[in-house]
Amino acid sequence: MKAFKLKKIVSSILIKHGLSKVDANISSNALINAELVGAYGHGLSRLKMYCDRIKKKVINPKPKIKIKKISQSISHIDANNSIGFVSADIAIKTAIKNAKKTGIGMVAVKNSGHYGLSGYYAEQAVKKNLITMIYTNAPPAVAPHGALKSLFGTNPICFGTPTGSKIPFILDTSISMINRGKIRVAARNNQKIPEGVALDKFGNPTTNAKKALEGVQLPIAGFRGSGLAWMVDILSGVLTGGNHAGKVKDPFDDFSGPQNIGHLFITFKTNLFVSNFKNRIKNNIKTIKKLPKIKGIKEIMYPGQNKYKRFKMNSKNEIKISEIIKKDLKILKS
Amino acid sequence: MKAFKLKKIVSSILIKHGLSKVDANISSNALINAELVGAYGHGLSRLKMYCDRIKKKVINPKPKIKIKKISQSISHIDANNSIGFVSADIAIKTAIKNAKKTGIGMVAVKNSGHYGLSGYYAEQAVKKNLITMIYTNAPPAVAPHGALKSLFGTNPICFGTPTGSKIPFILDTSISMINRGKIRVAARNNQKIPEGVALDKFGNPTTNAKKALEGVQLPIAGFRGSGLAWMVDILSGVLTGGNHAGKVKDPFDDFSGPQNIGHLFITFKTNLFVSNFKNRIKNNIKTIKKLPKIKGIKEIMYPGQNKYKRFKMNSKNEIKISEIIKKDLKILKS
Repeated sequence: MKAFKLKKIVSSILIKHGLSKVDANISSNALINAELVGAYGHGLSRLKMYCDRIKKKVINPKPKIKIKKISQSISHIDANNSIGFVSADIAIKTAIKNAKKTGIGMVAVKNSGHYGLSGYYAEQAVKKNLITMIYTNAPPAVAPHGALKSLFGTNPICFGTPTGSKIPFILDTSISMINRGKIRVAARNNQKIPEGVALDKFGNPTTNAKKALEGVQLPIAGFRGSGLAWMVDILSGVLTGGNHAGKVKDPFDDFSGPQNIGHLFITFKTNLFVSNFKNRIKNNIKTIKKLPKIKGIKEIMYPGQNKYKRFKMNSKNEIKISEIIKKDLKILKS
Repeated sequence: MKAFKLKKIVSSILIKHGLSKVDANISSNALINAELVGAYGHGLSRLKMYCDRIKKKVINPKPKIKIKKISQSISHIDANNSIGFVSADIAIKTAIKNAKKTGIGMVAVKNSGHYGLSGYYAEQAVKKNLITMIYTNAPPAVAPHGALKSLFGTNPICFGTPTGSKIPFILDTSISMINRGKIRVAARNNQKIPEGVALDKFGNPTTNAKKALEGVQLPIAGFRGSGLAWMVDILSGVLTGGNHAGKVKDPFDDFSGPQNIGHLFITFKTNLFVSNFKNRIKNNIKTIKKLPKIKGIKEIMYPGQNKYKRFKMNSKNEIKISEIIKKDLKILKS
């Protein structure tokens, strides 16, 4: 199905579930964007979950979102348990406005929910010629270094900057070695998972997907990745007033209350310290791309390049919808 | 030798090489701190190098450091090729002042040099009850993902926060799988290096330390770590006016000019969005420490805890000085 058509369907489903037209459009844009960049785990596969959470009253479809101005640069948003897309949209727009006014913007959000891809919001800031850093926490998926139980989310670290070309530099990286969805697929197909990405329930390394599902996922780079995940939990949870320390509920499994996820958005101008940022970043990227390459590597890519390519390519084609999602859409529409 | 005595010797050596008494003390404090926390690669092993660079006029012992106020929150420092410790000391103090005034501080530094441990400056901000993020670039050590040549430095990512206890949370992590010094030691002793940390000059994985020295070191977590290193190069180099894209000179090997390293310091108040940050962070840490542990793990440590322990322990004892460093000190004093 064409993206614009699918967007309309998703919007109408969300409106039917109580969202305002504006909020439904913000949400369907984010969901379809995830499909177009190939991040299917953040796309239509989540639509039923969002609707279920609205029905169970753990997402508020008509939130009264409060924006509190802390200073010209700094704002605090209480999302009132809105769908994450809507509060994140307000947050990045506020962060952009603050940075345009004072050079730097910082916006914290509490009482929010899963907002999809951090990179999607980073792109908005980069389009306004700003550098941005975005943090959000997430439900337990990764064990702190030394622990036998998951507590940190996949807690992405996101950084975006203009590049002087139309393709932005968007790093949006989880701190988990592997995502849980991939382990689930491997378990279903009796496939092994790579070494060093998970432990069994006794804390021993395993390549058995089923044992890994009973155990824990590992952070990237051991103690260091665990530290980065902890940093993200502090920045997006402890600092903002959101949930933290493993208290963010799994949106698929736990309907006992709202998620109360926290996010932190930092934005700043590229020309604070140099007048020729555009040339400098262009030279930076050009120099790195010119390095001798490992055999089999055609081009040294910067973060965001592949995603941009996928987006362009997929935008030309129809979006493929799996049978499961077709069924979801049918039920949700009716 | 006792730390205070060694500090005096180092200060007098730096004064003899042209530094002011104040700048010599700032530098010797940082160098001896590195010894006390066990980061020997940032301690006395570098003293001769700093003195050599002063003699060769690629470090300016009497810099005219300019602090330009961009806004109440933002400052830009031209370090005039000072020894890195001095410009970093001014920078973190300026960032602290800015954050205390407006809630958030951001200070960029250009024309600086190697400043030792980022965590040392983070500690200063945390002592003033601020959260801090610090980035610096460094001479080429790590190959961008897909490249056959080193370009990124070990580009540390540093994050510090008060914990409500006397031991601060200080994450100070390089994005390199292994540091070059360890490969050098392994090569000298005909030892193997771990798998997955380096490539030979043809781009093939190697555990042979000698072949690794001819090849490249790898970033943590492949494309993701490479992206983080790239982010640090942009934040500390492209943005600040410092060198970037592999142009930072190796301080030990390249005396053809100053390093022109760039640094970026971000600081902000803990109580911008919550009134009870201290309790929140205490609960966060307590919850994580209470998790069930992997066999053999006594305590789940947060970043900075081990370093603090080493500092306390080493501060009670004499600092051990190797024969090489004894010789350095003798020559530099005379």
